[in-house]
Amino acid sequence: MRKPKVVVLGAGYGGIMTVVNLQKKLGVNEADITLVNNNDYHYQTTWLHENAAGTLHHDRSRIAIKDIIDRSKVDFVQDTVEQVVPEEKKVILKNGEVTYDYLVMALGFESETFGIKGLKEHAFSIANINAARQIKEHIEYQFATYSNMKEKKDELLTIIVGGAGFTGIEFVGELANRVPELCQEFDIAREKVKVICVEAAPMILPGFDPELVEYARNYLERKGIEFRIGTAIKECTTEGIIVGADDNVEEIKAGTVVWAAGVRGSAVVEGSGFEAMRGRVKVEPDLRAPGHDNVFIVGDSALIINEEINRPYPPTAQIAMQQGETCAHNLTVLIREQGNMETFTPDIKGTVCSLGHDDAIGTVFGRKLVGWQAAFMKKMIDNRALFLIGGPLLVIKKGKWNFL
Amino acid sequence: MRKPKVVVLGAGYGGIMTVVNLQKKLGVNEADITLVNNNDYHYQTTWLHENAAGTLHHDRSRIAIKDIIDRSKVDFVQDTVEQVVPEEKKVILKNGEVTYDYLVMALGFESETFGIKGLKEHAFSIANINAARQIKEHIEYQFATYSNMKEKKDELLTIIVGGAGFTGIEFVGELANRVPELCQEFDIAREKVKVICVEAAPMILPGFDPELVEYARNYLERKGIEFRIGTAIKECTTEGIIVGADDNVEEIKAGTVVWAAGVRGSAVVEGSGFEAMRGRVKVEPDLRAPGHDNVFIVGDSALIINEEINRPYPPTAQIAMQQGETCAHNLTVLIREQGNMETFTPDIKGTVCSLGHDDAIGTVFGRKLVGWQAAFMKKMIDNRALFLIGGPLLVIKKGKWNFL
Repeated sequence: MRKPKVVVLGAGYGGIMTVVNLQKKLGVNEADITLVNNNDYHYQTTWLHENAAGTLHHDRSRIAIKDIIDRSKVDFVQDTVEQVVPEEKKVILKNGEVTYDYLVMALGFESETFGIKGLKEHAFSIANINAARQIKEHIEYQFATYSNMKEKKDELLTIIVGGAGFTGIEFVGELANRVPELCQEFDIAREKVKVICVEAAPMILPGFDPELVEYARNYLERKGIEFRIGTAIKECTTEGIIVGADDNVEEIKAGTVVWAAGVRGSAVVEGSGFEAMRGRVKVEPDLRAPGHDNVFIVGDSALIINEEINRPYPPTAQIAMQQGETCAHNLTVLIREQGNMETFTPDIKGTVCSLGHDDAIGTVFGRKLVGWQAAFMKKMIDNRALFLIGGPLLVIKKGKWNFL
Repeated sequence: MRKPKVVVLGAGYGGIMTVVNLQKKLGVNEADITLVNNNDYHYQTTWLHENAAGTLHHDRSRIAIKDIIDRSKVDFVQDTVEQVVPEEKKVILKNGEVTYDYLVMALGFESETFGIKGLKEHAFSIANINAARQIKEHIEYQFATYSNMKEKKDELLTIIVGGAGFTGIEFVGELANRVPELCQEFDIAREKVKVICVEAAPMILPGFDPELVEYARNYLERKGIEFRIGTAIKECTTEGIIVGADDNVEEIKAGTVVWAAGVRGSAVVEGSGFEAMRGRVKVEPDLRAPGHDNVFIVGDSALIINEEINRPYPPTAQIAMQQGETCAHNLTVLIREQGNMETFTPDIKGTVCSLGHDDAIGTVFGRKLVGWQAAFMKKMIDNRALFLIGGPLLVIKKGKWNFL
């Protein structure tokens, strides 16, 4: 009997957790598993803001796929997914194609610029390792250029962060720590540097407890971060951004603009004919795509409604990893033709938003935390994710142990 | 009786050696000594190519002036020299002015682009700490940008070095070591990166022993450096350079162009009415400017003829430092109105050109050296310069001890 062929697209949190759990559950003779990813490494998306700020080396945030997969059970193909053709059970890659009996689409997120003019061209986005590394180098180059200028243009030292959601706040938190280091490295006075967080909504961190939000804002402002709340970005140019609307517009010049305000699912999802909203498919309770009994979608391209508030769950690492576990279980049931598929329900253990490596805010097991306790919990959450992906050795190798 | 006022302009090799020797020779009551410099640090100009390549941190190449001068004897003014007015015995600074009885002009070199179109605007020059640091960051940013490009433009990874003289060769030597590190850091294949040294003359390292030149070229070519000898740069653009002449021109695209082919003396020298050729004044044997019995000129702005070949000595750190010693002696004679002024004669102990930190070529005390012996001698020369400036503690702190 031919072994069923499982193809997993993407080695982010959802894809890698599917593979890690599948290789534990299934014997060598039960299935052929193929993992397809554009890089030969998995990376911790939730750490990228640290790589972008320059507070953590990018090699700390990535893990070679060969070190995670069991190569007796899983084949790895390094290639970029261009399109899925469900009718033919095949995936078109940039340099070839693969066929499948069961498919897991875990293609991650893309930046969503909501049609704001110039953002795609002139703003950076903390999208992946390469992008984060470029942001780090860009900022350093601005500082070095400023130091070597005869007629100083102070705006080179301004960093604008678009969006005061989770990523935007975590990024400015890292910058608050990084800027004094940059000033020292490049002989620049701290007061010359501006970090401005621009947010269209009337508050920072929507959805967070107001008391925690207050703490975060005060803390970051004390560390020199400026907030422009209720301020919409109208356009991004080579010189900076234009905010406001109609007659009431203002230019803010900046050497660096980082857009951290919107994500969407993968364009491959729509390009392959799946019904989706901004690249997110409203999946069945067992995580399969509606109308496709052999295609699972996990991670940022899977849309799940939080019934309590009748709104989608945000795309988080925590949920993607849990989906990977459920997906692996359900695939095992299908392959063995025994047992029962599970319904996916997120188990939100907590949410912690870091404010640099030494402070944070969050809710963990229903308890509000700020300060070093929250920062400690954040590192424990980061280490737990590593543990689930690669076991204790990975936690020792790449984990965060820089406690206060 | 009023103490004579000595003003030293510039804290490069010539200026700092003048001050260090003056403060040893003169008592607190014999003279008021003022050192003027645009930075609050001295830097090792001969190490800047390492800072620019990224093989040595710029803080290793600079020394705080307060750590060198004896503050009971020397006042330090951080300011930029704009003009000297010999008739009024005063120096106009950007933010003030100082008067003198005796003046030492040690204003260093500037880049000379020989009127080649676009060089000033689009090429970097290894001119000082700030410029070197910018080159390092620029190269890293090119690599990071390349990694994050969808449609790869390989020319971003091309580094053109204009000039195969001493500085150009030492710089490509460092790049030969640095490029593999950059490739590792930014996930780029080594063969994608080109380092091209372009030289108008028919040979590299003019004036060096042909056997040593042959060794250097073979060594560097083996490490992946390309040479375009007998090739004149016609123009530098935002995209790279144009070489050749008339109908026979060729464009070489590059993300980075560093001009390392020409230096001249300080423009302040000419701007202050001294007769000079490219900022260099043919000084009297006692190092005074012709017609000025209270103005000394040392370092790169002082022109001295090598009678043996009837050509000027090249502007080197070795000569500048020796001039500082002679200048301090002659000033002491003038101030005390006793003893005899010395005639300056360069004492060329040797010349070593590094090819990265682990190889070099040179002639020391008349002996030709290559390989690790030459690299070792180069480090000893660097350490000796530190010793002369700041004594044994400085050598321990900033010296080069990374022997093979």
